[in-house]
Amino acid sequence: MSNPVNRPVKIVVLGTGRIGKMHAEMLARQVNETELVGVFDVFADSALAVAADLGVPAFASLEAALAADADAVCIATSTDTHVEVMKAAAAAGKHIFCEKPISLDVVMVDDGLAAVEAAGVMLQIGFNRRFDPSHKAVADAVIAGQVGSPHLVKITSRDPAPPPISYIEVSGGIFNDMTIHDFDMARYVSQSDVVEVYATGAVLVTHANGAITQIDNSRQAVYGYDQRVEVFGSGGMVASENPGVTTTILRTATGSAGSVVPHFFIERYAQSYLDQWRAFAGAVQSGGPSPVSGADGRAPLVIGMAAARSLAENRPVRIDEIDS
Amino acid sequence: MSNPVNRPVKIVVLGTGRIGKMHAEMLARQVNETELVGVFDVFADSALAVAADLGVPAFASLEAALAADADAVCIATSTDTHVEVMKAAAAAGKHIFCEKPISLDVVMVDDGLAAVEAAGVMLQIGFNRRFDPSHKAVADAVIAGQVGSPHLVKITSRDPAPPPISYIEVSGGIFNDMTIHDFDMARYVSQSDVVEVYATGAVLVTHANGAITQIDNSRQAVYGYDQRVEVFGSGGMVASENPGVTTTILRTATGSAGSVVPHFFIERYAQSYLDQWRAFAGAVQSGGPSPVSGADGRAPLVIGMAAARSLAENRPVRIDEIDS
Amino acid sequence: MSNPVNRPVKIVVLGTGRIGKMHAEMLARQVNETELVGVFDVFADSALAVAADLGVPAFASLEAALAADADAVCIATSTDTHVEVMKAAAAAGKHIFCEKPISLDVVMVDDGLAAVEAAGVMLQIGFNRRFDPSHKAVADAVIAGQVGSPHLVKITSRDPAPPPISYIEVSGGIFNDMTIHDFDMARYVSQSDVVEVYATGAVLVTHANGAITQIDNSRQAVYGYDQRVEVFGSGGMVASENPGVTTTILRTATGSAGSVVPHFFIERYAQSYLDQWRAFAGAVQSGGPSPVSGADGRAPLVIGMAAARSLAENRPVRIDEIDS
Amino acid sequence: MSNPVNRPVKIVVLGTGRIGKMHAEMLARQVNETELVGVFDVFADSALAVAADLGVPAFASLEAALAADADAVCIATSTDTHVEVMKAAAAAGKHIFCEKPISLDVVMVDDGLAAVEAAGVMLQIGFNRRFDPSHKAVADAVIAGQVGSPHLVKITSRDPAPPPISYIEVSGGIFNDMTIHDFDMARYVSQSDVVEVYATGAVLVTHANGAITQIDNSRQAVYGYDQRVEVFGSGGMVASENPGVTTTILRTATGSAGSVVPHFFIERYAQSYLDQWRAFAGAVQSGGPSPVSGADGRAPLVIGMAAARSLAENRPVRIDEIDS
Repeated sequence: MSNPVNRPVKIVVLGTGRIGKMHAEMLARQVNETELVGVFDVFADSALAVAADLGVPAFASLEAALAADADAVCIATSTDTHVEVMKAAAAAGKHIFCEKPISLDVVMVDDGLAAVEAAGVMLQIGFNRRFDPSHKAVADAVIAGQVGSPHLVKITSRDPAPPPISYIEVSGGIFNDMTIHDFDMARYVSQSDVVEVYATGAVLVTHANGAITQIDNSRQAVYGYDQRVEVFGSGGMVASENPGVTTTILRTATGSAGSVVPHFFIERYAQSYLDQWRAFAGAVQSGGPSPVSGADGRAPLVIGMAAARSLAENRPVRIDEIDS
Repeated sequence: MSNPVNRPVKIVVLGTGRIGKMHAEMLARQVNETELVGVFDVFADSALAVAADLGVPAFASLEAALAADADAVCIATSTDTHVEVMKAAAAAGKHIFCEKPISLDVVMVDDGLAAVEAAGVMLQIGFNRRFDPSHKAVADAVIAGQVGSPHLVKITSRDPAPPPISYIEVSGGIFNDMTIHDFDMARYVSQSDVVEVYATGAVLVTHANGAITQIDNSRQAVYGYDQRVEVFGSGGMVASENPGVTTTILRTATGSAGSVVPHFFIERYAQSYLDQWRAFAGAVQSGGPSPVSGADGRAPLVIGMAAARSLAENRPVRIDEIDS
Repeated sequence: MSNPVNRPVKIVVLGTGRIGKMHAEMLARQVNETELVGVFDVFADSALAVAADLGVPAFASLEAALAADADAVCIATSTDTHVEVMKAAAAAGKHIFCEKPISLDVVMVDDGLAAVEAAGVMLQIGFNRRFDPSHKAVADAVIAGQVGSPHLVKITSRDPAPPPISYIEVSGGIFNDMTIHDFDMARYVSQSDVVEVYATGAVLVTHANGAITQIDNSRQAVYGYDQRVEVFGSGGMVASENPGVTTTILRTATGSAGSVVPHFFIERYAQSYLDQWRAFAGAVQSGGPSPVSGADGRAPLVIGMAAARSLAENRPVRIDEIDS
Repeated sequence: MSNPVNRPVKIVVLGTGRIGKMHAEMLARQVNETELVGVFDVFADSALAVAADLGVPAFASLEAALAADADAVCIATSTDTHVEVMKAAAAAGKHIFCEKPISLDVVMVDDGLAAVEAAGVMLQIGFNRRFDPSHKAVADAVIAGQVGSPHLVKITSRDPAPPPISYIEVSGGIFNDMTIHDFDMARYVSQSDVVEVYATGAVLVTHANGAITQIDNSRQAVYGYDQRVEVFGSGGMVASENPGVTTTILRTATGSAGSVVPHFFIERYAQSYLDQWRAFAGAVQSGGPSPVSGADGRAPLVIGMAAARSLAENRPVRIDEIDS
């Protein structure tokens, strides 16, 4: 889709908040296939601090950042600015890595995706969990036919503690700030689009291929960050379990005791963040398709809208009610 | 509730088909707390064979069986005769162990339970999975408050292969022949009655205490009999896993390989069948309450009716629609 | 080696102490391939009680027991009488199952084995752990070449609590009452004879094929009966782990907690006791070779003698020092 | 022992081969508690390349490196130069992190340790495995008394593939290049010095507190890097297992399949390398004692000498034969 690149991919990071800073550091230091060209943030002090730490320039404006000698941008600005920045980056001919969700407004999403398509640039959405080695091994087993036709998907996704109230107030609700990852995971491991959703304290999803996905979320699992995926099919089952912080087992007269699970996503998904950048760089270098397309970014948003309606009306809601 | 008994409990087995024969052998040989007094079956040859093998008399009629010097009966006749036999046994003053389901007709169930109550005998329903040591440890942890308030229950219950078509035709459907165990398990481990059900390819159950239960069933898990229960609550989570047939692990250059799971319920739940008899004998001996009451036998039947309606109409169905 | 038998194998149990009573019950009730013909014990009351419970005759003398219509005997008398009884049974043309150790005296052992060989009967030694499904799967993987040439064997064998002092005084020492099982396991899973032993607080065994076995024993593992076997070879490794009493895991803020291990050998090795009888019956029925031969019974005794000398002299001792 | 430091610890890395380069990168970028001041190598090109990559100076000589404004040095030069560099660094008043082994010559070791002691600087030996979270949890459980008095230690340490012949020729033999880590681990988790060694195809170690350690090594475990530690004591047992590369399990009709283990030490022990630097920085900052002292570096060398003599003479060798 674009000209192959025979060197590390040059990337500008837009937005240097918590997640943008993490991306910048990975691009600069941990991913050999990328080179950090510079950073930009509307809060100049934030950008300057990150830039100084990593030895790259901080651009004075979005325009300056997009004018830099770079192949691609990482959009890690606030969610409500994603589409605007995406359109500007596409117009500047940059390949785009965009944090999820693209937007909370599906009309805006379509606007952004149209701009990307018109510009012919590659867009990858930051569904990093697809790159977790254990979840990826689940999907790979499904794709390889090792469990036959998928019949059932079970996704457990529980946070150790709720985010601040201030975050929840603007996040667009649990379906947008938390379950969105699971909607994407359901599509990824079942290899099938979603046709209907029923949401109550848990979520049941019906896929186009007849598979069912059960999702359970919690904002407070006191024992840590619980992240598991299972696919059951006509030929068997495959499942990813939580790793322990250690592998140590203690046996005494009262039983056996083992490790806690990882505390939260930074610890659990560290590898996935690196691997999604490697996939991005590979797609830019080869001119190949996006590993996680704009359509992949749009679908969970629509599923979340159906889930919200289902919860409000206590009935199953078909996706084509929302998005016909 | 009745006079305590200071010796092994004397029991007559009614019905000597596959499951009745298993009970008779356990009562005669494997459970020290019970004594098999004799057996009866409308197919006299079946009863005679079992009686000869175990060294006990085969009674010539139900009346003769109920007139024997016994404390209790085990009802393992065909489902459609359970209530009739239950009423006769209650009238004869016998404590009753009855295989599940009590009946496929809730009016019949109520008729039987009323007779039991009037007679003042103890009735235990054969939900043996409550006595599986691993599932029981899940329930015990919930009861002990080790996971706080239950928020979510996950039950996986998959058979290795479907039963014969002839069985499915008279079983009353998957909710009565298979999911009924899971409805009971949901009530048992959540310690809460059910208020609403939504059934599609999987089942979502809402409990009176606000907990949600997810159930997934399959009639054909090619890797064996998959039986797992998990409870997540405000204070943690507790889960039972499948045991392996062996504990052996093989590691080679291509990965690690482990055991198959138990083939089916006879292998997996052997211990639970013995333990439910020990519980029965204990209740008779102590004059204590039933470990699994008639109400426990009735509830899953009603839940199954709600599930069937939910599946037919693709909407959540409240229990009080069925049973107000 | 003898005439095949096309029916359950008829067996007389000699010795009705704890282990003999267990064998009698299994033969009578749990193993379809065998039939218990009667029992004998020098303590007539013991034999009468077991006989009454199982509905078989108690013989008045060893001679009467050996004259019964039986294919085989089970020798579960006290260790010091094993060889004498074995010779009488062989002279009577009975196939023989003999509890280990055959004798604490290797000259006596050779005397007994010569009588067995002269009579042309089949002799199986009661090394039941060979029939544990998990350990057997280890041996099977080795035999099938799945781990290549064995280089190292690791055997953990720890009892939950010491036996009574009275037992230890006559047992012949830890190498005869406990490690003997592990010496046999080492030969079984390595598929190689032993050439040298070094014993201190643990035991190192050198095999003829160059493999090394590490054995660790304890008379008091407060967390239960710990029984594990591992074989490492040129092509990989295979290991059996302890099963849990349950599979239940509890996760709370402080970590995860699991089940205790089985308390002792009755719980852990129940299946192996049944399977060794099935193997015995199969060998009698087919006229095939013994699954655990007299030589297999003799070898660990000699290894134990070498181990005792090694411990006394704090040096490695070759088997041919003891048994050239 | 020295003045506390209230800022990141300034460190010069001496030697920029494979392991030195890894340390330099960690100190510069991954460990917040340290600051890389510069690097030196006798091969100037190697030092220049690492220095350019990390944005620090490459010193022209050892003298220049030791004259830099730094609190400490990391000695990652070739083993035969360790003691000479250590003495120079001690004379320059630098705290010292030294890769193991200190030297293959115990007289040289004592020479170096004397210089360190005379200078009053802190010396930490690079036994990184002590900092592996899982092995450390084993030691912590022992130290906390959770397994009572240690009776037995089992250490499995198997490499996936042998090093080049050229390496083996100068490594000082398997006891110095491989088992040295396990000798240290034995002392660490048993919390006891070693008094006797017996080495054949495996190693048995007797500790001063009566505990026994079994060590098994292999240069070629085809299934990956196998690293496990177990301590059994009067109060229970504690063990570290191999982590999987993923946690994914696949179940099909033929059994269950899981992940490979980590390929080699870089993957398995990544966390331990970071944590040992954090421990070093903490000791320098607090003026506290070394987490892994010079004596800890010396002991395994002597144990290895005893092991070599034991192997050559096929007898147990007491440590005081070597080092009285």
